[in-house]
Amino acid sequence: MSVLNIIKIGGNIIDDPEQLEAFLEKFSALQGRKILVHGGGKIATRIAADLGIEAKMVEGRRITDAPMLDVVTMVYAGLTNKNIVANLQKLDCDAIGLCGADGNVIKAVKRPVREIDYGFAGDILADSVNSLAIKKLLEAEFTPVFSAITHNGLGQLLNTNADTIASSLAVALSKLYEVSLIYCFEKNGVLLDVDNENSVIETIRSGEFEQLKDNKIIHDGMIPKLQNAFDAIAKGVSNVYIGNANNLHLYQQRKFGTCLIA
Amino acid sequence: MSVLNIIKIGGNIIDDPEQLEAFLEKFSALQGRKILVHGGGKIATRIAADLGIEAKMVEGRRITDAPMLDVVTMVYAGLTNKNIVANLQKLDCDAIGLCGADGNVIKAVKRPVREIDYGFAGDILADSVNSLAIKKLLEAEFTPVFSAITHNGLGQLLNTNADTIASSLAVALSKLYEVSLIYCFEKNGVLLDVDNENSVIETIRSGEFEQLKDNKIIHDGMIPKLQNAFDAIAKGVSNVYIGNANNLHLYQQRKFGTCLIA
Repeated sequence: MSVLNIIKIGGNIIDDPEQLEAFLEKFSALQGRKILVHGGGKIATRIAADLGIEAKMVEGRRITDAPMLDVVTMVYAGLTNKNIVANLQKLDCDAIGLCGADGNVIKAVKRPVREIDYGFAGDILADSVNSLAIKKLLEAEFTPVFSAITHNGLGQLLNTNADTIASSLAVALSKLYEVSLIYCFEKNGVLLDVDNENSVIETIRSGEFEQLKDNKIIHDGMIPKLQNAFDAIAKGVSNVYIGNANNLHLYQQRKFGTCLIA
Repeated sequence: MSVLNIIKIGGNIIDDPEQLEAFLEKFSALQGRKILVHGGGKIATRIAADLGIEAKMVEGRRITDAPMLDVVTMVYAGLTNKNIVANLQKLDCDAIGLCGADGNVIKAVKRPVREIDYGFAGDILADSVNSLAIKKLLEAEFTPVFSAITHNGLGQLLNTNADTIASSLAVALSKLYEVSLIYCFEKNGVLLDVDNENSVIETIRSGEFEQLKDNKIIHDGMIPKLQNAFDAIAKGVSNVYIGNANNLHLYQQRKFGTCLIA
């Protein structure tokens, strides 16, 4: 199987034009088949506020009502996605921007209403990813760039977590490719000492993860991130890297962040 | 050469959800390879106004300044394009939404500043269309849906006339396919009597066009539309149809609007 790298960047990079440009240069320089998944950033919140649309929160969770869905569709799948694609094209990376509806690449279900009605939030199921459509694009030598918008197959767009999109793509495509999933964030990796950026743990095996948790070496906020990563590995992803977007150029030298393996 | 139908719809259909839905049903039912090109509609103007962005006009021509470019990118390539794609997917049409930057499908140049500075308006040149990229998508059995946003290859998105996108696609792809270009608008076709929707001229040959102009049978507003159509035909497009979006289901019975041929 040939190698596929799936890279996810978050809002902190999207929001900083200089950092984004530097990141896209490193991304475009990566050899081989690759996919970019990007989160939203603060532009949607700002535009919603400018449009007089209130950001609705219930128990600290964001609610996507109909006006907010329009805003995130505009910003994530339009403004942000197309500017990223145009910048990658400048760098000779043949990017093609996608939301889940394009080529029916990711279908989701509207989150069921239980205690909270999340509105137009989409949950990804096991069979949500259309690997064959994505494979067609990869084999045609396009570099897919995913925004965090999906659809339900019935004409409804849905707002979906970008981390989940990245891991769902990685799991589904691991049937066709040898997939590495690379989460870029603001730290250099999983740190032994949260205040020391040089204390990156190079490798964590799934067996060691439990131990690190028990010994409270891994910071609380990192636990769900790592749990999701090991879940993806259990489902077929070769390895998951967590590191600093600014260091992506070190990835193909295997000097990037923390590597999680089975 | 196999047949390719390129259909262009304008803002009047985009702005009317019921008419849009009815049109998309007819579009999705069209057999064979096809492309949709959509204009903008009034949503961008409304959202710009809500954001306090003034629509700038000089001598009756619209100016795309930087804030307005962001708005049209959000609305055309995001909100409108992705909702059309999601609705086509519902109808089992495997649509993939594109702006010119995606897959580098349409490059344009920023309109040179002469008497008027049009801002981020993109002009399409003879070699602007990347036919091979579009062919890859068509051969992979996707139905491309183009918004009226292009890029300059240097990271800059540009606002571009949707009619021009449609005719440029048609001309470029006529080297690879037998292309029919179908302009949908609010009238039944080119009318002998502008007040009588039943007076559609079925066929106009390029030789007859001059005569109809000389005899002032063709309404002033129609002349540039027809001139562009005959230019496209002179450059290789097989034929151009002009008719009512509501009648698109009659197209494959050759009962749609006015047919322009060489």
